Amino acid sequence: MTFNEFLLKTALLLIFAKGCGEIFNRLRMPGVVGELIAGILLGYSLLNVIDPAQESFHILAEMGAILLLFEIGLEMDIDDLKRAGFASIWVGTLGVALPFFFGWLISLAFHYPPLEALFIGGVLTATSVGITARVLQEKGWLKSREANVILGAAVLDDVLGLLILSILTSVEKGNISFLYIIRSFIVALLFLGLSIGIGLRITPFLMKVLVNLRTKGAFYAGVIALFLLFSLLAQLAGLAPIVGAFACGLLLSRTEHKLHIERGITPLADFLTPFFFVIMGAQMKIGTISPTSIVFALILLAIAFLGKLLPSLLLPRKGLSKWIIGVGMLPRGEVGLVLSAYSLTHNILTSADYSLLVLVLMFTTLIAPLILNFSLRERPAH
Amino acid sequence: MTFNEFLLKTALLLIFAKGCGEIFNRLRMPGVVGELIAGILLGYSLLNVIDPAQESFHILAEMGAILLLFEIGLEMDIDDLKRAGFASIWVGTLGVALPFFFGWLISLAFHYPPLEALFIGGVLTATSVGITARVLQEKGWLKSREANVILGAAVLDDVLGLLILSILTSVEKGNISFLYIIRSFIVALLFLGLSIGIGLRITPFLMKVLVNLRTKGAFYAGVIALFLLFSLLAQLAGLAPIVGAFACGLLLSRTEHKLHIERGITPLADFLTPFFFVIMGAQMKIGTISPTSIVFALILLAIAFLGKLLPSLLLPRKGLSKWIIGVGMLPRGEVGLVLSAYSLTHNILTSADYSLLVLVLMFTTLIAPLILNFSLRERPAH
Repeated sequence: MTFNEFLLKTALLLIFAKGCGEIFNRLRMPGVVGELIAGILLGYSLLNVIDPAQESFHILAEMGAILLLFEIGLEMDIDDLKRAGFASIWVGTLGVALPFFFGWLISLAFHYPPLEALFIGGVLTATSVGITARVLQEKGWLKSREANVILGAAVLDDVLGLLILSILTSVEKGNISFLYIIRSFIVALLFLGLSIGIGLRITPFLMKVLVNLRTKGAFYAGVIALFLLFSLLAQLAGLAPIVGAFACGLLLSRTEHKLHIERGITPLADFLTPFFFVIMGAQMKIGTISPTSIVFALILLAIAFLGKLLPSLLLPRKGLSKWIIGVGMLPRGEVGLVLSAYSLTHNILTSADYSLLVLVLMFTTLIAPLILNFSLRERPAH
Repeated sequence: MTFNEFLLKTALLLIFAKGCGEIFNRLRMPGVVGELIAGILLGYSLLNVIDPAQESFHILAEMGAILLLFEIGLEMDIDDLKRAGFASIWVGTLGVALPFFFGWLISLAFHYPPLEALFIGGVLTATSVGITARVLQEKGWLKSREANVILGAAVLDDVLGLLILSILTSVEKGNISFLYIIRSFIVALLFLGLSIGIGLRITPFLMKVLVNLRTKGAFYAGVIALFLLFSLLAQLAGLAPIVGAFACGLLLSRTEHKLHIERGITPLADFLTPFFFVIMGAQMKIGTISPTSIVFALILLAIAFLGKLLPSLLLPRKGLSKWIIGVGMLPRGEVGLVLSAYSLTHNILTSADYSLLVLVLMFTTLIAPLILNFSLRERPAH
């Protein structure tokens, strides 16, 4: 790719991503879906302007994913997890277990190979809480007990989702024996535990060094180098690189420099994450989806819905609007997309299955705020 | 390049760039030279870890150059240029004309082909004022009349340097006739004039649209898309892309959103410009410099010095410390580096000549603050 080509295509990518995002925002729908649709327009499915296989786009998209997970980790509060309480743990754990189990089961029933079935189940697990949080905020519900349960559960299921990703990426290397899964689980837990445990001792010292650097941009360059190395470390431990970026974000969220880091990393993430979402959309080949697989997609959608709604509705707690909690947990997003992307680039999923899965994720994300808007209007904030 | 490789090499690039930059800063020498040396360490000359020919690094380095020139344009005040006055115009114009003319002449004398000789002259023209400004600031001289002359002249010679680059890139396409040079000069002036003229009418409206977007990061994505398109436009007009980025920055520096733009673009530039400087250094092949060409390099260095010192010392104005002005104009940097990089990638300069030129630029930048520090200590601020 010549630099001219890169200039033109990157300009188009940014304009389409933010243009579609803006249209969706104005229609009170999630901007992320708009960016995915920008990708569908520019990619294999339609205009064929952006080729996701080109090295530079591929690398920038992966950088976007890493930055996204780093930001998610940075914004997460480990204390929130500790405070999450029974309701969040119930909703979070069951809301991961049910979609995973039934997604896997139905895929096997539809004659998918075991590994592919596991990945399909995994994609359905993690809630993307950003969309829900924004709707709750607009309606003045952000400080409600329901919102607390949702936020706690979403943090928990992000972690569980990444744990599943870590396990599946290890399993992908050939072994699907029960023993191997247990071993991968332990490796993933060990990586997160050790990197955060050791990191918590080293980072205060490291931050002190970085803050005292006098070179322009040296502090941020240091932070970026740190999470790139964490991503690499995760990869060397047999996990996905984003798990390392997430752990690094989590780690730095505990330091006094959190706001300082955010101020410099957010513009970079704002530039790079559109590459991720647009390339995700561009990789889709809508035309390859066979009409017969629509049935499978609808069943997956039902599992994605019920797998989050049921645990919430069955929550053994009184005085909470369980319906709001259930609907709030519906949107799937970043973690599911990252898992789908991983499956595609590692040839675990076909283009057709990948396209189908991303469509299912998009639907959950589109429908949840619609129902939420409607439900919250019915039940005014206290 | 695999993503793992990219992660590791990018982390190394950032750590080396800022590490060397920091060492130079602590020694009161320009950090930019430190970043170039980081490149020499990591590149062809020594460790061979970073291959500047790899597409992704190449593209990120070019993005770094574009962002650098966009930032320079953004920080420039067109009113400063208007207010520059006789002293700045004298120092700026002659300080471009002399190094260019004598650099060209001596290169011809050393049997360089005509086009290569023109480029060598061009590389020596533009002052990099950042280093001087920092020394002046440290010594409390930034508000002095000398500083005003230097800043005005430096702005002027950046513009003249880019104009020379624009002309040379057109000439490079084959024609070196006098008529063609005049035509290229007019095209370059027209591009700058028209893009700024039309831009000044359109940007207020465009900024109004961008400011009202509700999507996260949409404002900055719009600004980035704008200067990418400007760069492309410049390229289509036969100029170098950075000229377009510079014009775009100049344009946006006039809007009320200048600070807002800076806040989001600076972190991005901080991330990408190290790629430019490190790749600039990595492209050098120190080993290819022949011992005999050292004489040529020393003559070039003398021209680089005298070409800026003489116009200042001969300035027909009283009551100014002309020595300070002359030394302040010595450092060459970004614009010269961009011109060198252009010559290398377009096969106008050989690796050996490129390496030689970058070394000459590095020396001007290293020595200027040393002399300045010494001279300013002798003459305390008023």
